[in-house]
Amino acid sequence: MSMDIDQANQTAVNRMMEARPILKAVATARDVIPGMKDNLFLHAGPPIEWARMSGPLRGAIIGAMLFEGIAKSEAEATPMVERGEVEFDSCHHHGTVGPMAGVTSASMKVYVVENAEHGNKSFSNLNEGYGKVLRYGAFSDDVLKKLHWMNNVLGTALADALAQSNGIDLRALIAEALHMGDEGHNRNKAGSLIYLKLISPLIAKVVKDNAAESEVLQFIGDNALSVLNPVMAACKAMTDAAHGVEGSTIVTTMARNGTDFGIRVSGLGEKQWFTAPAEIPVGLFFSGFSQDDANPDIGDSAITETAGIGGFAMATAPAIVTFVGGTPKDAVNATLEMYEITFAESKYFTMPVLDFRGTPTGIDLRKVVELGIAPRINTGIAHKNAGVGQVGAGLVRPPLKIFEDALLAFAEKYNI
Amino acid sequence: MSMDIDQANQTAVNRMMEARPILKAVATARDVIPGMKDNLFLHAGPPIEWARMSGPLRGAIIGAMLFEGIAKSEAEATPMVERGEVEFDSCHHHGTVGPMAGVTSASMKVYVVENAEHGNKSFSNLNEGYGKVLRYGAFSDDVLKKLHWMNNVLGTALADALAQSNGIDLRALIAEALHMGDEGHNRNKAGSLIYLKLISPLIAKVVKDNAAESEVLQFIGDNALSVLNPVMAACKAMTDAAHGVEGSTIVTTMARNGTDFGIRVSGLGEKQWFTAPAEIPVGLFFSGFSQDDANPDIGDSAITETAGIGGFAMATAPAIVTFVGGTPKDAVNATLEMYEITFAESKYFTMPVLDFRGTPTGIDLRKVVELGIAPRINTGIAHKNAGVGQVGAGLVRPPLKIFEDALLAFAEKYNI
Repeated sequence: MSMDIDQANQTAVNRMMEARPILKAVATARDVIPGMKDNLFLHAGPPIEWARMSGPLRGAIIGAMLFEGIAKSEAEATPMVERGEVEFDSCHHHGTVGPMAGVTSASMKVYVVENAEHGNKSFSNLNEGYGKVLRYGAFSDDVLKKLHWMNNVLGTALADALAQSNGIDLRALIAEALHMGDEGHNRNKAGSLIYLKLISPLIAKVVKDNAAESEVLQFIGDNALSVLNPVMAACKAMTDAAHGVEGSTIVTTMARNGTDFGIRVSGLGEKQWFTAPAEIPVGLFFSGFSQDDANPDIGDSAITETAGIGGFAMATAPAIVTFVGGTPKDAVNATLEMYEITFAESKYFTMPVLDFRGTPTGIDLRKVVELGIAPRINTGIAHKNAGVGQVGAGLVRPPLKIFEDALLAFAEKYNI
Repeated sequence: MSMDIDQANQTAVNRMMEARPILKAVATARDVIPGMKDNLFLHAGPPIEWARMSGPLRGAIIGAMLFEGIAKSEAEATPMVERGEVEFDSCHHHGTVGPMAGVTSASMKVYVVENAEHGNKSFSNLNEGYGKVLRYGAFSDDVLKKLHWMNNVLGTALADALAQSNGIDLRALIAEALHMGDEGHNRNKAGSLIYLKLISPLIAKVVKDNAAESEVLQFIGDNALSVLNPVMAACKAMTDAAHGVEGSTIVTTMARNGTDFGIRVSGLGEKQWFTAPAEIPVGLFFSGFSQDDANPDIGDSAITETAGIGGFAMATAPAIVTFVGGTPKDAVNATLEMYEITFAESKYFTMPVLDFRGTPTGIDLRKVVELGIAPRINTGIAHKNAGVGQVGAGLVRPPLKIFEDALLAFAEKYNI
């Protein structure tokens, strides 16, 4: 059986690496996300009911209900949820990924990414930047005002701009950014500027109003996370392409909802999650905050590590240690450790500082369990209470137990 | 005396590091460059007469004469030069620097950089991008057409855009780019994108025509050398601030005109050059070209190494080896070697991969001569014939002799 697993894993990892995610469009969620409905709120991580949701996820859902006009206040929103008037589902069940709370609702504009190699599509919302933002559970008036501007002005500009082009090759963008000190998860400075470079001449063509255009370019350029969401959608398109390969032990999803950490595995079921309580990240905190303020790990952004970048590519992003802690040597060691638990080295994502070695790609369930080494994830840290926002950034690992559970389920399914 | 020299060098290097070059404006050379005249053609490197000029420098001068409308063809231009109807001078004598041939004429738009700390100004022309370009001695119709577009459309857009702002802090820009895999001389990918990020919202405000604006943004974004010229002017403002410190052995200029390599020293005269024949760079050649096609080292761009970046900061730019040859380890070693011949470590330009150590800053004549280690310079390679263009990129060192000559002159002046 071992030989067959290796072969299946090779197939899965090849599909992951050969996927060619192209940013094709920006469109309204209800028009493009499969199964999207007006009262459906998608969230990051494995499925979870309201009662078990953490503060930032609840806050983001309340904010999205206000944004949609379904409720007028938190006081109105919460009982509606408790009466079951809105539905929840995991973003991942709808080809979607979102950073932190990842809440995506029907009226929101989303990026549409198409895998030109295998045809599958993926989606992600627009990035709000730093500070008080919905994805960290904030839902004050200024948060909502910004979301409306993003949907109406920024989103429309991006949609019209992309309609002028054949799309943006996100695999090429990520590869270039990894040569410019990004790791693609917590550091997307270079990638966001490459995105600006590619989109700004298109925006100039379609936005007639000079002041609005200036604001749009300023917003994209000032936000060092502008490209995070398209990059996450690219990683989702890649990992989805690797899912469903019979007999493969490659992990195709790692995601957190702020309460549970969940993974899915290529050779197991489409909605078969293995979950355990999410850990609290360790890292550097913004002034005035400490570890006590931190919510457990949250967000779909671990899709980047699942696809072989982010924490797995830290070696190429030594400047990130000013943000997440540690030394450049630690960053190199993080990447080196990840080769222990991965099946392949990326053909397309290389790291100059390691003599252009490919990033560790395709987490192999068997290796994680055998070596007791859990994947490393770079992540933002949310305040545990709704409405506060980001309090820091750092590193986290998923609980080993979910890999053990998944391997047991794998052994059972395949009678090993 | 040695103690006094150290003190003088500390003063010179402090002035170099504390200089705060701000990109203030784009303006027409004749209106801003001190001593600029209609029949004056500034060139890179130490002063040189027509008879000794190399192919690419001659080509660039002919091109600039055509651009100015002084001559209608090469056949008309050359005899005019030989009759002494035009004048030449070193860019450096006019606060100016230009990459490769560096030819700057009266009608050309130039960047204006002001050192907010010490008040001195510096200038550089606009970057033409890759391919057949004036700075490599090409002067065909398409080269001239592009120059006119740059002057009229791009230059005007940049001038109007900068007039909307308080200027762009180039020291901050360089510092950030060094954390994004640039070394600031041969690799300016990140810096050029940071420049685009800062300038594009301003351009959006002032350019009314959507098609023209789109072209301008595309040109800036597509040219990974867009920011090279402002960066060179920044380094010129820094090194000029360090010039003229009595008793200092710090090198304040390294520049090449395609025939001679020249240096100037802080404690010696303003126009006191030490020169020797320039070497031919060793590196990687574009398809169809070889070492035999290469012109000797040319350009003012070695001002970057003089200011502590470029070849001196290669450690932070491992991806550059795909362009200039060698391995990432060689790049680290290049930087480490430069600490041997420099007086200080930069307070502002740091390299994450070396645990955020400051770049080697302030070449000390004494150390170069004592150790026999010449500075390392990253550089483009020009074809030796006029009109061809760039044929590769690589590494070069100045002849040791000019440092020995300078040290002798220094000893003589100061009676050591």
